[in-house]
Amino acid sequence: MLILRQDISRLTIQRMVLYHSVLKLMQEEGITICISKELGRRTGISPHLIRKDLAYFGEFGTKGVGYATGYLYRRIEEILGYDTSWNTVLVGLEMPTVVPIMCYPRLWPEAVKIVAVIDLGKQNQGVAVHNLGLTIESIDNIKDIICSRKITIGILAVPPSHAQNTADQLIQAGIKGIVNFSSFPIIAPEDIAITQVNMTSLFSQLTFDLKHVAMKDSCS
Amino acid sequence: MLILRQDISRLTIQRMVLYHSVLKLMQEEGITICISKELGRRTGISPHLIRKDLAYFGEFGTKGVGYATGYLYRRIEEILGYDTSWNTVLVGLEMPTVVPIMCYPRLWPEAVKIVAVIDLGKQNQGVAVHNLGLTIESIDNIKDIICSRKITIGILAVPPSHAQNTADQLIQAGIKGIVNFSSFPIIAPEDIAITQVNMTSLFSQLTFDLKHVAMKDSCS
Repeated sequence: MLILRQDISRLTIQRMVLYHSVLKLMQEEGITICISKELGRRTGISPHLIRKDLAYFGEFGTKGVGYATGYLYRRIEEILGYDTSWNTVLVGLEMPTVVPIMCYPRLWPEAVKIVAVIDLGKQNQGVAVHNLGLTIESIDNIKDIICSRKITIGILAVPPSHAQNTADQLIQAGIKGIVNFSSFPIIAPEDIAITQVNMTSLFSQLTFDLKHVAMKDSCS
Repeated sequence: MLILRQDISRLTIQRMVLYHSVLKLMQEEGITICISKELGRRTGISPHLIRKDLAYFGEFGTKGVGYATGYLYRRIEEILGYDTSWNTVLVGLEMPTVVPIMCYPRLWPEAVKIVAVIDLGKQNQGVAVHNLGLTIESIDNIKDIICSRKITIGILAVPPSHAQNTADQLIQAGIKGIVNFSSFPIIAPEDIAITQVNMTSLFSQLTFDLKHVAMKDSCS
């Protein structure tokens, strides 16, 4: 099935991820048939919107019966691209040579496999990265690394001042998608898929709320 | 200044974070006066919207002159709560005992300090966490940990099936805000600030786009 991505809104995709998580839990609980009302109760999304979201991708259920939990789960997995392995390169600057919670298996999509780690700094070259079984490499070999390991995704974990330049190098070397963890938007050709993840920004709503709301002290 | 958080939209806060990043870069470049047109050029946000966002929080510039870069930077830092230190507890389940890229100083807000690490699993108790200078503790001592170290933020990095239960324990122990990295929404009282961060979801738009778009091969 070829889906034209411009027809599907980002919000639909985000909700599909939520359906995917809930269906996983339901499977673990041994629930074999699921109705959109129950999916709605567990996700907080209206059953009408759930049926509408799923309808973009085909017919998955039987009217009056519901969806087969396992089947719907696997179909959403396919739709989201989680049934494929996505070889990924992680690029940072003077990173600690340890592997992150961010990449900790329970929180990280299983389909995304880090197969290379590059550090823009000179002093970490050749250092082993615990947990990944990899050695830190140089950006100078980026083209070789991407082509020989069939890498499609680059994770950009460099400071803002290096973000655009590094993205340009990755794109030139053949990368197809970038997850940008630097706190700065990058510009890329239209055929490159980009996801911006700004940790500072994710925390800012919280620190803003906490700063401007009087807090009860539960400890005294 | 007391700001009523319900008056300020989440999008305004997200844009403030972007102004903050750009102003930091401009300071590093030695630019002492900045006009909204230049902030707009660098952020991709219209100068009109920039002036409107800033106006929520007061008068920062002089008409026809612009903003003093350093002053505006520090004021936004205050508004976002980055001028305060937020003591934070990280809670996971069977975490690798290493510190994450997620917490790697260049990508992580400086104001958020991890002062305790809890693992719900038994086997990691007492193990040292490299880079943080901390030792993994038990959830049984959560009330003591939160109160004695004046912790306001909890980072939830547990699997979905443990998310709500762990959040409840944190809230009961006095936590004020939660950054939820588990891929499942949690329910909390209204006075608890919550930020959801779903890594799988962040990657899903990318894997969806990559899966459903024909890709040119740059390597052959």
